[in-house]
Amino acid sequence: HEDQPLSGIAVHKITFGLNEKAYVKASPTVLGSNGQHSELVLVQYSSPKPSDDDWIGVFSPADFNASTCPGDNKMVQPPRLCSAPVKFQYANFSNPRYTNTGTGSLKLQLINQRSDFSFALFSGGLLNPKLVAISNKVAFENPNAPVYPRLALGKEWDEMTVTWTSGYGLNLAEPVVEWGVKGGERKLSPAGTLTFARNSMCGAPARTVGWRDPGYIHTAFLKELWPNSKYTYRVGHRLSNGALIWSKEYQFKSSPFPGQNSVQQVVIFGDMGKAEVDGSSEYNDFQRASLNTTKQLIKDLKKTDAVFHIGDICYANGYLSQWDQFIAQIEPIASTVPYMIASGNHERVWPNSGSFYEGLDSGGECGVPAETMFYVPAQNRAKVWYSSDYGMFRFCVADTEHDWREGTEQYNFIEHCLASVDRQKQPWLIFLAHRVLGYSSTYFYAEEGSFAEPMGRESLQKLWQKYKVDIAIYGHAHNYERTCPVYQSVCTSHEKSNYKAPLNGTIHIVAGGGGAGLAEFSDLQPNWSLFRDYDYGFLKLTAIDHSNLLFEYKKSSDGRVHDSFTISKDYRDILACAVDSCPATTLAS
Amino acid sequence: HEDQPLSGIAVHKITFGLNEKAYVKASPTVLGSNGQHSELVLVQYSSPKPSDDDWIGVFSPADFNASTCPGDNKMVQPPRLCSAPVKFQYANFSNPRYTNTGTGSLKLQLINQRSDFSFALFSGGLLNPKLVAISNKVAFENPNAPVYPRLALGKEWDEMTVTWTSGYGLNLAEPVVEWGVKGGERKLSPAGTLTFARNSMCGAPARTVGWRDPGYIHTAFLKELWPNSKYTYRVGHRLSNGALIWSKEYQFKSSPFPGQNSVQQVVIFGDMGKAEVDGSSEYNDFQRASLNTTKQLIKDLKKTDAVFHIGDICYANGYLSQWDQFIAQIEPIASTVPYMIASGNHERVWPNSGSFYEGLDSGGECGVPAETMFYVPAQNRAKVWYSSDYGMFRFCVADTEHDWREGTEQYNFIEHCLASVDRQKQPWLIFLAHRVLGYSSTYFYAEEGSFAEPMGRESLQKLWQKYKVDIAIYGHAHNYERTCPVYQSVCTSHEKSNYKAPLNGTIHIVAGGGGAGLAEFSDLQPNWSLFRDYDYGFLKLTAIDHSNLLFEYKKSSDGRVHDSFTISKDYRDILACAVDSCPATTLAS
Repeated sequence: HEDQPLSGIAVHKITFGLNEKAYVKASPTVLGSNGQHSELVLVQYSSPKPSDDDWIGVFSPADFNASTCPGDNKMVQPPRLCSAPVKFQYANFSNPRYTNTGTGSLKLQLINQRSDFSFALFSGGLLNPKLVAISNKVAFENPNAPVYPRLALGKEWDEMTVTWTSGYGLNLAEPVVEWGVKGGERKLSPAGTLTFARNSMCGAPARTVGWRDPGYIHTAFLKELWPNSKYTYRVGHRLSNGALIWSKEYQFKSSPFPGQNSVQQVVIFGDMGKAEVDGSSEYNDFQRASLNTTKQLIKDLKKTDAVFHIGDICYANGYLSQWDQFIAQIEPIASTVPYMIASGNHERVWPNSGSFYEGLDSGGECGVPAETMFYVPAQNRAKVWYSSDYGMFRFCVADTEHDWREGTEQYNFIEHCLASVDRQKQPWLIFLAHRVLGYSSTYFYAEEGSFAEPMGRESLQKLWQKYKVDIAIYGHAHNYERTCPVYQSVCTSHEKSNYKAPLNGTIHIVAGGGGAGLAEFSDLQPNWSLFRDYDYGFLKLTAIDHSNLLFEYKKSSDGRVHDSFTISKDYRDILACAVDSCPATTLAS
Repeated sequence: HEDQPLSGIAVHKITFGLNEKAYVKASPTVLGSNGQHSELVLVQYSSPKPSDDDWIGVFSPADFNASTCPGDNKMVQPPRLCSAPVKFQYANFSNPRYTNTGTGSLKLQLINQRSDFSFALFSGGLLNPKLVAISNKVAFENPNAPVYPRLALGKEWDEMTVTWTSGYGLNLAEPVVEWGVKGGERKLSPAGTLTFARNSMCGAPARTVGWRDPGYIHTAFLKELWPNSKYTYRVGHRLSNGALIWSKEYQFKSSPFPGQNSVQQVVIFGDMGKAEVDGSSEYNDFQRASLNTTKQLIKDLKKTDAVFHIGDICYANGYLSQWDQFIAQIEPIASTVPYMIASGNHERVWPNSGSFYEGLDSGGECGVPAETMFYVPAQNRAKVWYSSDYGMFRFCVADTEHDWREGTEQYNFIEHCLASVDRQKQPWLIFLAHRVLGYSSTYFYAEEGSFAEPMGRESLQKLWQKYKVDIAIYGHAHNYERTCPVYQSVCTSHEKSNYKAPLNGTIHIVAGGGGAGLAEFSDLQPNWSLFRDYDYGFLKLTAIDHSNLLFEYKKSSDGRVHDSFTISKDYRDILACAVDSCPATTLAS
């Protein structure tokens, strides 16, 4: 699995070698003066002994050296650097002649992350960094400002939740949302406030160099929404002196009534991650594609009702500053349509932390940042399985980072989610999970010989089949793959694009090409694998009406459809008896 | 178990021996003229043949003799007395020389219990009472007035319920609550009205001499409350002519958002019972201490967010008049902070009534008064198990008066309550039940050789251990006892006061010293018993933040802390694998 770019910096080996002849200057010193929450900063620097692996680290909070580092990570000798930078770039990035002239400049984009910034020039590369010079401090006009709202569907079909981040604790201000039908009268709703501390992290780097105060995360519950209506809202804080600090105004469209017959379009992908528009924090082209995916989603937003990002959200891997940058990257999307997440290995996996899989994938986060910064309508937000309705769709989202096998709490939930939907009103039943529980011919699944997570199909295919799940969608494997309608590894229909029910099986899709480094397929393409694409992309499901569903796979590079199929089915097809899914009948009459 | 003082009066053996030369006078005749619901009444009396076991019985309703007594309890011969007094006191209580002078007086406190009062002088003591004289009637200005509101947490974190009692049936008036943020605009909410009749009682004395019309019990549901906000409310009734009868104004603070990081303080105790401030209805110093406990709770109310009274509420034992007097006693507390109850033997136990235990402890009430006069967020209020959140706390309240063993409905509920809480947001998981299901060295448990209710630990310790319950708290044994963190009777930590997670076991507390007569310990103090106190007291749990909990035991006599410990833990301690509580993992990667 890819590392996090910041993990390439040997923070604990940073030594001090300040040099009066070197300097770093950053301007402007006050950012966001006309209310914006991101700004390009000009960083000018010079070093008497420049070398091509000199680099600039952006630190936030600005003063980053400390006599001792909190937490269990004892450093070599003081003064020590306890935190990784929030961003870095090589000194010669914009000036190839830096190594001769010794002077250079950079344009770096900073986002409002609740505290000030300083820029440090290092020599010795990322692995043996020596601090040469530190800049003046730079800060946003209001570091506490309410920022990066993200919507999520609530526990009722007519409830939308708004979650945002600020620097205002409850002792300072009361979080509120002002909202109402577009052009209608305004309502004021409260928000609950959560945060988490260093000791909620399960290990390094999240508990040590990766730690950064997450600020306060507020969630408001907008209830009793009228269906299909345009609402406007803004998030804010009422200070103790009565003053109100407001965000700009945002807009969303409320959900349709479950079963309503209107065109409903949902975008689904996994493993997007993040990248910096200014090209910084690059790491062998790590997640550049995430910017493409984000751009395409924004372009197509008018024709998108909801987004499901099924796991491996921002690949912070313990470097918490990246979470703020991720929610800033998706803000145009998430502030306008519900952004529903699922839990992935990079959110949850950590030894002895109750994660089903072993490994260091979450960098010590053990799920906490994802489970706090994004709302999901799960009963227990640390067990990220939930059910969600959107018009004619019923989504059953599973949590592959906890046990799903028969007899477990999650298995019972999944059966309940699949069983409790009225398929005449909500015909389109979609199963979502991060790791591939169904079918994938990605090399690492092929090498395991299971072409999916072991024990995935064994437990769940009974349920997919019994409840006639239309499509099961996974991430985790960074590519795109589509299967035939399949049950027990056998195709139940040889149609390729225009499916006519009954399908007698479920179509399984891998959509892990959101932006993280691609994963190869095995040369062997099993007979259930109809279409494979080693590229970045995302899915769009369109419920045309109760009988017709359009599935599209779009590439992130061009936003154009590169694979698609349709399913048309009548209600009786769902009700009818099919292999291993025959409803009980009686001889009595 | 102690009896109810009124049960000492042989009502069915009362004979009439009215004597013109004897008299009883009570004044004033109109009570509560400036809206108060309790008042001291001067009772003056004289008897030609005084004796030291003469006594005054307070009867309400005032006319208490009848040709026949309703219900199955056939009396000896008419005229009969069908109801016990609501209160009694010996004639010489304030006048030692009564037996010589034959005249005396008393100050008795009456509370508004929906009907008028009369005072009767008896000779022949409590066991062979002979009615000598009856006083004039005395009544509150408005016997139907809305009184004794008690708050309780609702089924949602942002819902507070208000329950109160009145004499207004739905034919007379519509119950309402006027409420709103302190200083904000008022809202009017409806209330549901409940009552119960004699035939809802399961046996004597509740169905016979103990019976008294409970009036009407109204519950309103104040929803979508802002977190941590001061609300003011008053309860009232809209008469058919439009007139509105209001209570005085009360105030409460709404709950924090589940997981919110603020100081949260909860008081917990069991077995309080009630006593009369005027010293009446005394029975070998039966529950005087309940007045101390009540006084300390009122004194500390500013630093109390909620109260859990875990069973054996007022020991009415079928003498229903005591329930009104109990809710009057706790009104200053319950009208200001949520007063959450659990079901105890004295509420529920009655032969052939579905109670798990055999016995006459509830005096024929079989749970009905407690389950009607107090709201709890249980799905079925006759099966008093429920889950409740308060900030960083999750409380799982069990019902020891119904079967809790594996496979039962209650067992499944308990597991669900323990399993469905996000322990990063709500780290403090508290299990509450009336009878000791865990550990107690009280003599009657020692003599049974189980040092707890038999079958208590066998079924539930698996759940306490699997879900890492921090503290389990019980009543029923009228004393205080604290165990080490324990599992299967073995201490899993030998720390005494400053626990550092993981504890690998649950700390069990007995807190049954709310006021009812104390119970001795066995001389044998098992090795899991760290601290025992044969005295009256109550607990205070303070969630300082997500990592630190303070536990305090305070004596009712002085309100000072006599035992305490702290628990500090990180989220990873909760997640980590411990004996019998290792989450499932997979070998796959």
